Amino acid sequence: MTDFELPTTKHLALRLERSILHLTLNRPEVRNAMSFAMVEEIIAVFDALADQSEVRVVVIRGAGGHFCAGGDIKDMAAARMAPAPEQIGGPDDPMAVGNRKFGTMLSVIETAPQAVVAVIEGAVMGGGFGLACVADVSLARADAKFRLPETSLGIPPAQIAAFIVRRIGLTQARRLAVTGGRLDGRQAREIGIVHEVYDDDEALETGLATTLAQIRRCAPGAVAVTKDLVISSLSENIEVLLDRAAKDFAVAIRGPEGQEGTMAFIEKRDPAWARDDA
Amino acid sequence: MTDFELPTTKHLALRLERSILHLTLNRPEVRNAMSFAMVEEIIAVFDALADQSEVRVVVIRGAGGHFCAGGDIKDMAAARMAPAPEQIGGPDDPMAVGNRKFGTMLSVIETAPQAVVAVIEGAVMGGGFGLACVADVSLARADAKFRLPETSLGIPPAQIAAFIVRRIGLTQARRLAVTGGRLDGRQAREIGIVHEVYDDDEALETGLATTLAQIRRCAPGAVAVTKDLVISSLSENIEVLLDRAAKDFAVAIRGPEGQEGTMAFIEKRDPAWARDDA
Amino acid sequence: MTDFELPTTKHLALRLERSILHLTLNRPEVRNAMSFAMVEEIIAVFDALADQSEVRVVVIRGAGGHFCAGGDIKDMAAARMAPAPEQIGGPDDPMAVGNRKFGTMLSVIETAPQAVVAVIEGAVMGGGFGLACVADVSLARADAKFRLPETSLGIPPAQIAAFIVRRIGLTQARRLAVTGGRLDGRQAREIGIVHEVYDDDEALETGLATTLAQIRRCAPGAVAVTKDLVISSLSENIEVLLDRAAKDFAVAIRGPEGQEGTMAFIEKRDPAWARDDA
Repeated sequence: MTDFELPTTKHLALRLERSILHLTLNRPEVRNAMSFAMVEEIIAVFDALADQSEVRVVVIRGAGGHFCAGGDIKDMAAARMAPAPEQIGGPDDPMAVGNRKFGTMLSVIETAPQAVVAVIEGAVMGGGFGLACVADVSLARADAKFRLPETSLGIPPAQIAAFIVRRIGLTQARRLAVTGGRLDGRQAREIGIVHEVYDDDEALETGLATTLAQIRRCAPGAVAVTKDLVISSLSENIEVLLDRAAKDFAVAIRGPEGQEGTMAFIEKRDPAWARDDA
Repeated sequence: MTDFELPTTKHLALRLERSILHLTLNRPEVRNAMSFAMVEEIIAVFDALADQSEVRVVVIRGAGGHFCAGGDIKDMAAARMAPAPEQIGGPDDPMAVGNRKFGTMLSVIETAPQAVVAVIEGAVMGGGFGLACVADVSLARADAKFRLPETSLGIPPAQIAAFIVRRIGLTQARRLAVTGGRLDGRQAREIGIVHEVYDDDEALETGLATTLAQIRRCAPGAVAVTKDLVISSLSENIEVLLDRAAKDFAVAIRGPEGQEGTMAFIEKRDPAWARDDA
Repeated sequence: MTDFELPTTKHLALRLERSILHLTLNRPEVRNAMSFAMVEEIIAVFDALADQSEVRVVVIRGAGGHFCAGGDIKDMAAARMAPAPEQIGGPDDPMAVGNRKFGTMLSVIETAPQAVVAVIEGAVMGGGFGLACVADVSLARADAKFRLPETSLGIPPAQIAAFIVRRIGLTQARRLAVTGGRLDGRQAREIGIVHEVYDDDEALETGLATTLAQIRRCAPGAVAVTKDLVISSLSENIEVLLDRAAKDFAVAIRGPEGQEGTMAFIEKRDPAWARDDA
């Protein structure tokens, strides 16, 4: 795939297959608990993806039957052992700095120009719960076990809270906030954490294949623009956003994707990006 | 109905029956595809409705078994043939200007003081999908076919994206954005595009009659104020909004509707606006 | 419970049982209609709770088989009889001033540091509907009767409208706004007003006990911080919020709850706040 280069990673397994990047959290011995190092690697991967269009889809999953068991307890212990910061929560407090990185990770995934699909099974805790909340499409096993264990440990799900509200709205987020958020896959679907649930692996893989086929029919540049408009609409004045959207539309329809799409439609053929080898 | 006058329209059929305006997209030969001309007519109708209270409800539907097949391809082709604009997406680019009008149309419908009811069947694509998202009550046939075909044509659903997020939230909007948004009526109801689905026309008409009867019990002025508060709450600081709401309340309860409503309640009779001939 | 003191109340029954405050709307002869006096008492109770941590949960319900029949008609009548204000809706208009208090009440409940649980049955109208919308967990009988009667009386559900949008989103709120919002418990759950419904009182009480047990496992301080982050995320820029959340996290994990939580986890025992006598 030309000169695009993925970062070297130790805690993630990366496999680029045509235009799909399969990103696997790869610490199965700790149910893929997210160490600070793993978080840095995820950020590095999405930073590398931010300005290139060869990768159209990222599929995130966990190795060994679990999605992700949340933050790594060892990192917490190490941060606690470090010399006391001048100001608790200040810029030299490793607890605050380390925690903030989870939010940065969730933001870069949320705003990726690629379509992001999460394939979810087993434990989905804390930061893993957050990951499930920032995928464009989240597919889960019905027996997956979602949980926000933070408050039972005396701490808030700090970086995750805002992304949960964006995912499922205030009402369900408030309930999860005060009750610890124990859900199976079906309940997660009912309140909107995930989009579909499946009873077994075969059905899950079929669901993934269907989703990937749907995504392939959509032009990558148009998908990136649409995602940006969708996410921007949360914070931007709607009239301002509609002005911007009109420009985006004109640029797209006069650009290569718009020309190919229109031509393919007239010629009754698949556009280039929808072909089997795309 | 006194001196209120509706604009003359070519692509819409308008029928005013007591206080209900039946607005029918009327280009059945192209499944009511929305040409720029039709969009202008819809805007003109809602502009005419904005400051008068004789029309209490607008019922929007499509002629000939389809709701709306989206933007009109011919307009796109004409805009493409026009002389190149000085700046792509700029104020002299007919692509951008034409696209922006769809957003204006959706905004004027969303903020109409009248209750707006959409009756949906057949094809519901692109701009038609957007229309379904801005009605106060959307009633659909279970076999209606929703779709966002834009990205498969290489363009974003630019003016529609923000209204989809307002309608169904970020999570479902993101999925639709990357997968092309193919839904039947039942799925559209499950994610919140429409409020109710019906298996056949008879059930759909009964559902519409029930909705219209519910709306008739509500005072038109109070409905307009409530709609305004509901939509404003998306962008306004809540404490500021509550201050305004308190004023709105006092004005309403001391005004003619509030007096008639209280009197009717005490006299155990229907208020004037709820009578069969209202 | 040390020196914490609850205000004296006439229209509310208060019972503090360990760390749970049972707050009962207590005007069963008028189905707990909310007079201005009752609204003031609710505000006073939550003001007293705002800066103390001995009460961890507030359970709100109504006496005599009904939750709350909405605003008190007599107060409206009295306000109408009062001398005309200089300016309708102005600061000397008792209609506006009285109405605004409902919004203040809903705000102080929404932002309480305690977990707030509503137990809902019978009539749930107007301001009672609003109360159901600001509890962290709302549990209802399937045969509860929700209604927004305001517009049928010629007035808007002024202070409630914004809280309904926060609760269930724009789409369902718009429908309720124009149709008068008649729902049973099951429909209220489907659109997200309440979290769970139960067929009879026994099941409802069991559901309440389960919820309270879940809440007890969560550290009170962490719950308060999480609730604050969740609600702030509606209005605050997300990157700013994530910065604040990182500080909150560091303060919590280095504080007494974080230390007790970590220690209990390592020692495989319940943390202090999760013990049966907590």
